[in-house]
Amino acid sequence: MRILVVNVNTTEAMTEAIADTARSVASADTEIAGLTPEFGAESVEGNFESYLAAVAVMQRVTTYPEPYDAVIQAGYGEHGREGLQELLDVPVVDITEAAASTAMYLGYKYSVVTTLDRTVPLIEDRLKLAGLDARCASVRASGLTVLELDQDRAATTRGIVDQAENAVCSDRAEVICLGCGGMAGLDEEITAKTGVPVVDGVAAAVTVAESLVRLGLHTSKTRTYRQPRPKTIRGWPFER
Amino acid sequence: MRILVVNVNTTEAMTEAIADTARSVASADTEIAGLTPEFGAESVEGNFESYLAAVAVMQRVTTYPEPYDAVIQAGYGEHGREGLQELLDVPVVDITEAAASTAMYLGYKYSVVTTLDRTVPLIEDRLKLAGLDARCASVRASGLTVLELDQDRAATTRGIVDQAENAVCSDRAEVICLGCGGMAGLDEEITAKTGVPVVDGVAAAVTVAESLVRLGLHTSKTRTYRQPRPKTIRGWPFER
Amino acid sequence: MRILVVNVNTTEAMTEAIADTARSVASADTEIAGLTPEFGAESVEGNFESYLAAVAVMQRVTTYPEPYDAVIQAGYGEHGREGLQELLDVPVVDITEAAASTAMYLGYKYSVVTTLDRTVPLIEDRLKLAGLDARCASVRASGLTVLELDQDRAATTRGIVDQAENAVCSDRAEVICLGCGGMAGLDEEITAKTGVPVVDGVAAAVTVAESLVRLGLHTSKTRTYRQPRPKTIRGWPFER
Amino acid sequence: MRILVVNVNTTEAMTEAIADTARSVASADTEIAGLTPEFGAESVEGNFESYLAAVAVMQRVTTYPEPYDAVIQAGYGEHGREGLQELLDVPVVDITEAAASTAMYLGYKYSVVTTLDRTVPLIEDRLKLAGLDARCASVRASGLTVLELDQDRAATTRGIVDQAENAVCSDRAEVICLGCGGMAGLDEEITAKTGVPVVDGVAAAVTVAESLVRLGLHTSKTRTYRQPRPKTIRGWPFER
Amino acid sequence: MRILVVNVNTTEAMTEAIADTARSVASADTEIAGLTPEFGAESVEGNFESYLAAVAVMQRVTTYPEPYDAVIQAGYGEHGREGLQELLDVPVVDITEAAASTAMYLGYKYSVVTTLDRTVPLIEDRLKLAGLDARCASVRASGLTVLELDQDRAATTRGIVDQAENAVCSDRAEVICLGCGGMAGLDEEITAKTGVPVVDGVAAAVTVAESLVRLGLHTSKTRTYRQPRPKTIRGWPFER
Amino acid sequence: MRILVVNVNTTEAMTEAIADTARSVASADTEIAGLTPEFGAESVEGNFESYLAAVAVMQRVTTYPEPYDAVIQAGYGEHGREGLQELLDVPVVDITEAAASTAMYLGYKYSVVTTLDRTVPLIEDRLKLAGLDARCASVRASGLTVLELDQDRAATTRGIVDQAENAVCSDRAEVICLGCGGMAGLDEEITAKTGVPVVDGVAAAVTVAESLVRLGLHTSKTRTYRQPRPKTIRGWPFER
Repeated sequence: MRILVVNVNTTEAMTEAIADTARSVASADTEIAGLTPEFGAESVEGNFESYLAAVAVMQRVTTYPEPYDAVIQAGYGEHGREGLQELLDVPVVDITEAAASTAMYLGYKYSVVTTLDRTVPLIEDRLKLAGLDARCASVRASGLTVLELDQDRAATTRGIVDQAENAVCSDRAEVICLGCGGMAGLDEEITAKTGVPVVDGVAAAVTVAESLVRLGLHTSKTRTYRQPRPKTIRGWPFER
Repeated sequence: MRILVVNVNTTEAMTEAIADTARSVASADTEIAGLTPEFGAESVEGNFESYLAAVAVMQRVTTYPEPYDAVIQAGYGEHGREGLQELLDVPVVDITEAAASTAMYLGYKYSVVTTLDRTVPLIEDRLKLAGLDARCASVRASGLTVLELDQDRAATTRGIVDQAENAVCSDRAEVICLGCGGMAGLDEEITAKTGVPVVDGVAAAVTVAESLVRLGLHTSKTRTYRQPRPKTIRGWPFER
Repeated sequence: MRILVVNVNTTEAMTEAIADTARSVASADTEIAGLTPEFGAESVEGNFESYLAAVAVMQRVTTYPEPYDAVIQAGYGEHGREGLQELLDVPVVDITEAAASTAMYLGYKYSVVTTLDRTVPLIEDRLKLAGLDARCASVRASGLTVLELDQDRAATTRGIVDQAENAVCSDRAEVICLGCGGMAGLDEEITAKTGVPVVDGVAAAVTVAESLVRLGLHTSKTRTYRQPRPKTIRGWPFER
Repeated sequence: MRILVVNVNTTEAMTEAIADTARSVASADTEIAGLTPEFGAESVEGNFESYLAAVAVMQRVTTYPEPYDAVIQAGYGEHGREGLQELLDVPVVDITEAAASTAMYLGYKYSVVTTLDRTVPLIEDRLKLAGLDARCASVRASGLTVLELDQDRAATTRGIVDQAENAVCSDRAEVICLGCGGMAGLDEEITAKTGVPVVDGVAAAVTVAESLVRLGLHTSKTRTYRQPRPKTIRGWPFER
Repeated sequence: MRILVVNVNTTEAMTEAIADTARSVASADTEIAGLTPEFGAESVEGNFESYLAAVAVMQRVTTYPEPYDAVIQAGYGEHGREGLQELLDVPVVDITEAAASTAMYLGYKYSVVTTLDRTVPLIEDRLKLAGLDARCASVRASGLTVLELDQDRAATTRGIVDQAENAVCSDRAEVICLGCGGMAGLDEEITAKTGVPVVDGVAAAVTVAESLVRLGLHTSKTRTYRQPRPKTIRGWPFER
Repeated sequence: MRILVVNVNTTEAMTEAIADTARSVASADTEIAGLTPEFGAESVEGNFESYLAAVAVMQRVTTYPEPYDAVIQAGYGEHGREGLQELLDVPVVDITEAAASTAMYLGYKYSVVTTLDRTVPLIEDRLKLAGLDARCASVRASGLTVLELDQDRAATTRGIVDQAENAVCSDRAEVICLGCGGMAGLDEEITAKTGVPVVDGVAAAVTVAESLVRLGLHTSKTRTYRQPRPKTIRGWPFER
């Protein structure tokens, strides 16, 4: 099967990193296609950028020329998943939700460690709408920006591990979700320091997407995620 | 003061109707500027169209050349309000929330009557995120599309009034919110038939916006609605 | 229009201060009438005093001899609003709710800073019943009594500002509501120190009341706030 | 021990009936003193009357000349319990809460059957504040007034039993609470018709009050229910 | 009447201590029969042991040869109460729930102080399912094991009192529930140190059980707690 | 990898059917071992039987002589999953939760269709504790017993499909979960009649278990699901 893994920002290097993570857990017969939006911000850290990403992701996916079996939206706490679900029949998996639903199989409560403080409410809102917030102990910010994550690996690790330890000790988390696509690869260090399992959203989403495809399941088209009604759309990028 | 009232769809006639409603309740010294997005769908009835509208509204407002004191996003249950709040210092008022917070002063529970069944979850989600859902008795759909609302006034009235009556009798609503900008003007008939107060979101939003301006209040810039960080935006429609 | 602003305690000086605050934001054509209950406590800081105030406010309002368009109950976290709504057709606005619904337009979460620790549960209960608690980050007590607020302005300011800072930093509040009529005038200092918007309940309530009147809306009389059934009332103050 | 059972309305015959119910379940060494408020409405069916009752009950209890060990507030869904808790050290038991907490030992969900539709929200609010609403399947109104309950016993029984059956069949209630002091004595007929246990609030409250006394427990005076601070109370009915 | 008080572990000395506590509050005409499970763990501090206890308690109660009027399951936060309710007609009272429902009559919020950290989620889950969690301020662990409670009384008292103080000061608890059958007798010291009422679950449960019996109430057999359907049970301990 | 799929009842034919379903979706390199408890009821339809099954499942799994990588507890709405998590390091997947978390990727709300009315609260409770209830529209009972499901396939299909249609039309479900291991194979007929995706819990659980194993994730041993402390266990079936 082929799974599209769509980055939410326009930084190609992050798309590559995300696709690599996806490939590292994908089944042998799964092809991972990493997509970068054609427009939008170099990193997504707030509502303005996230709404722009929502449209850019929909544009990128719907102009992809080959067939595919599932789509992963690889942004943590971002807008847009419901729109993709309307446009497509194949399953759409958001990494925020995949990380949470995976974590819930492993411990009583989980926490998310993310980048900037300002993105905490976006993640909280997405978890609430997804109905996956009841067992979320906390969403904690490391204070690092998305693009800083790659620049100083030692500082990044320290920042993330510190918040993970706080989550385990103070918030009673028993599992940690890495709240940004750019954090992949930190699991081992965090598990080593905190002793709790660490879930990477992209990796989790690949297994969820493959599972839905193998089960032969599609998005329900009965009400909320019905195909948009045919109507006049004015202006780029969806003119018709 | 000047208040921008932004339609979420590209139908100019609806912008006019919405602006007229706004003017009918605005104070004498308030100027209402009705804005139509430059791109997007002729009517917004689902997530795909709503995400597109979120971006189109942000684009339209941030390119408006004159000063203004507040912005009203005149779509019921639509995405985007949080993005505008990041981009602007002046208050941003969503008509979904204005209708709900107004209704809550008038009765124990309120219901929303909207257009298509598929938009019910969007409204429920927006009310939940706004924290205004605890006293919402129900969101009911009339089955009419946004654009049909204007075509057969008698059928429209009947459809809306039927659902309002169900909300009052079966769901125990004591106030009705009109869940679409295009329903303005139906209040009197509904009140006549059900005996309960009816709140139009656009009218309510004008009074909320004026109130916030008169109180000298601005959007909090301390965390969630902070101005987006300066960064490279590629392509349409916010390149910088 | 004429709006009655009813103090909940019997201290005339507080009624004056509250009415002054109300007048400072009222429209030019709005007359503010400040009312002091004829019986009750000199300050209201708990349930016993608050229940007494509920009756005293109803007695005072229903014996007011002139016509009026709306009533503001100017006590934070007090009982009684629902009783007034039964007795009157005009809108009734509680300052606890007006502050909260106003704050919710300005930030993701708000906190209330109030007087004594013992009044915190009263405020929490009123917000819960009003369905306005979902985005309340915390209700914090300064430890000052209502009557102390006016005696040592420097200590008052320090006490309130300290709690406001705790609310912003520890509880993630993005807006502060002043949780006592006697705190009016502190907004500027708190905003200066915390950088977040500050909402005064009395000022907010005036704009809500004016809005409801301008929209031509009345309390729903369909079920909960129906006029009391005619029956024998024994003893003062409502004998009939 | 002596338990005061305070009626919330001024109808002496109802006080007698309530006290009789209380005596029928009280222990041999428990004295039940039935108290009637000195002022207020002949029946309490809404917020105005209920707030008046809250004060009248506090006045009546605090002027009772003999010692007592506990107080039962014998009105369903009424205001005032928290005020009594401030004024007294001995336990205060509200029949709404006693019925609910008793019912929760007997089945998965319970329903309340009450008098007029307008009192449903009062009961719902009291259960919500008491934190006893999570297992409440429904609060249903028979449409009978408090005073009609005694007039036509056959009609009363039919009205109550009909709603109890609806609660069991449609709302999945497994226990019924009688939502009015005046309904005592109907349990057997309802159990006969619906097959589920029926809880009378007054009877339940007597056992709760006796239990608290036997356990040597008093109201916590650490914060919320602390004695009111000494201050000037002006006028009726608590001048000091 | 006769009440069975069933320990959840196999330590006879704890059964004796629990039965003694029960006898100290039981009415003169109530006989307390303390039962020890025939199999299971010497102390129950987690899910594995608790599920085993659930079955052992059901086995022990259903093989008790004499008649009885009510059953108390004397384990804090343990599984099994719903199973007993299916098997029996007489009331079944869980001490976790009895402590909570009793505490709720005495203060605005209560906390539970228990043994090991790992049992906190079990107690939280039981309170949530019982619908008694809304007013629970916290469940705190002293770090002592069940069997340590009796070994060093001074250390036990210190550990429990420390957490009780934290609950009152930091979590705003106004009442403390002793979260383990083995803590009976600590109430006086805790009340002396914290000033708040302390509820022992076993003592509370005795008064609840007696109350239900005196009210003539039985478990509802209409749906959830219906007698198990006759069917083949293979193997010990319930073969039939 | 090897996955143990444990039936909760003692009916070997059901174990076979469940294992067949599991095998039909398992990866080529996954071995499914179907286990039948050595004691317990022939079908599990209530709390007594379910608690017995909890222990029987733990006994069966911990005496399994070969290595394995994950365990699936194949009972809908049954007790016991937390106990297994304490005893094992490998992932434990409950089919109730696997069905729900899978369904939540496919539609806005899901419903469960189960067997007897009496099992509805068990499923509701498990979903609540799992934190997967927020998007559950309803749990509906077909009225068929577990063992009847296989006897009259036409009646079974009709009963299940009827409730599925009610869930979609009345409760606004967009996905249906088959609420009993014995319902596997009905998906196609239900999808054909209702047009919505149908999730079988056993099939979903296999993909979840495989995913967790492939991701290298284990149950968190930091607090709640820590290995039971070494202690004396008396008697059946875990003596040590």
